[in-house]
Amino acid sequence: MKLISYLHQGQPGWGMVTGAGIVSLANAACPTLLSALQAGKLDELAAGAAGRQPSAQLADIEFLPVIPEPGKIFCVGHNYEEHRLETQRDKTQHPLLFIRVAESQTAHEQPILLPAESTHLDYEGEIAIIIGKPGRRIREADAWSHVAGYSAYNDGSIRDWQKHTIQFTAGKNFTGTGAFGPWMVTRGEIEDGEELTLETRLNGEVMQRTTTASMIFSIPVLIEYISTFTTLQPGDVIVTGTPGGVGAKRTPPVWMKPGDRVEVEVGKVGILVNSIANDPAR
Amino acid sequence: MKLISYLHQGQPGWGMVTGAGIVSLANAACPTLLSALQAGKLDELAAGAAGRQPSAQLADIEFLPVIPEPGKIFCVGHNYEEHRLETQRDKTQHPLLFIRVAESQTAHEQPILLPAESTHLDYEGEIAIIIGKPGRRIREADAWSHVAGYSAYNDGSIRDWQKHTIQFTAGKNFTGTGAFGPWMVTRGEIEDGEELTLETRLNGEVMQRTTTASMIFSIPVLIEYISTFTTLQPGDVIVTGTPGGVGAKRTPPVWMKPGDRVEVEVGKVGILVNSIANDPAR
Repeated sequence: MKLISYLHQGQPGWGMVTGAGIVSLANAACPTLLSALQAGKLDELAAGAAGRQPSAQLADIEFLPVIPEPGKIFCVGHNYEEHRLETQRDKTQHPLLFIRVAESQTAHEQPILLPAESTHLDYEGEIAIIIGKPGRRIREADAWSHVAGYSAYNDGSIRDWQKHTIQFTAGKNFTGTGAFGPWMVTRGEIEDGEELTLETRLNGEVMQRTTTASMIFSIPVLIEYISTFTTLQPGDVIVTGTPGGVGAKRTPPVWMKPGDRVEVEVGKVGILVNSIANDPAR
Repeated sequence: MKLISYLHQGQPGWGMVTGAGIVSLANAACPTLLSALQAGKLDELAAGAAGRQPSAQLADIEFLPVIPEPGKIFCVGHNYEEHRLETQRDKTQHPLLFIRVAESQTAHEQPILLPAESTHLDYEGEIAIIIGKPGRRIREADAWSHVAGYSAYNDGSIRDWQKHTIQFTAGKNFTGTGAFGPWMVTRGEIEDGEELTLETRLNGEVMQRTTTASMIFSIPVLIEYISTFTTLQPGDVIVTGTPGGVGAKRTPPVWMKPGDRVEVEVGKVGILVNSIANDPAR
């Protein structure tokens, strides 16, 4: 099942992408995908929609981030060996985590914004996991049961601001830099632990390519680690890290500029597409 | 004006602390302090409550964090010279920021939780600023008009987890470690830029003592910097950094343990008091 959040004729909605179009799953109790995840009603709502006519086509809607306002967005740094080496980071015994705020997100087919304060806008293609069941101190062996689904994420980074201090926060939280989409593919569509491809293309050229087999910390290990310190809630997002090939580490560096087109493709999930535009709020 | 969030007879509420007791300011449109800040209704609600009888006494209520669910909590690291020196950090041209999630918070007179995974629980007394007016790219000269008020914060830190990697996230986000209270003192009570004292006491012994005159990045500079990359929204919190004297840098180190009592006193604001307890979810 593919689930999306969108605007249709100016109204927010969410639903299921089918061959015939988008079937709305919104109701008064669950007006958003997040609220359906929180209520544990996803499967029930989808089953109830069987045979229902589509209310819109993909061409008619404006995508929203898969979850526009997650309670928490944990991003993992240096989680593929090639990227760890290109950034000259030490091996760590534990996942490296930073946090994105919800306002930093943007959606499929919406622009990633280049702020006036920088020209160092870089891509990071990643696989995002959406949590479906709450849990604290989840054991690795139980972790898959907490996953609701998968999406693609472009962890757009303002590299000079990321390096202002030893903490990444500023460079990872510019408004409109974290692209999340196009949809969530539910866990049932992909075998737990199945190898997924991950590829980032800039203006058609492949910049990053790997598979989940090269992850340093697997999805269950990330869930175990993060849930040790905090309760993972439905709708929380874990952005699982980028492979080698980022623009900052090329010679000369490659920075994204207005008019560029960047794609993040996750096998069995889909292709997240964004253009780059100047931040209008400048 | 002193504003608090609380539970009274099991029901959440918020209101104004007066000499006679707590005057509730909650109504259907503004059931929380956060919603009142978002609606810009704080002064109107307070004015409308003039002469109203208190609905509870401080002794009757259970404190909640001043804002239980801020949209964003930005914490500043190494913002007093003594603490920068004791942690042997380089001087930076920009504020060092990390993020706390709302679930990591606790309230005045509630315990700060020691998780089973560590014994390295440290205090960090800080001054918290609550945002009252939205803004992006706020200039230093305009920054004070975005401040709704002040509170005390104990940025309780699990030091070994903070050092798992180069990012502080894990050690700063254990559930029940960030104490926020007891109340918000509104901006009108303190002159903009007035020197405020900040003192942390552990079991009655002074561990940290400074004033805002020793801050490296002032409150207006922090607001300008953060709002460059994100829109500061009403109810967002900036925790402005801790002075020297943390437990981790003492010889031998001082770690907080169950039964300890820690106080953070901010001049003209109040005293945030917490005991330490084992995290029951272990």
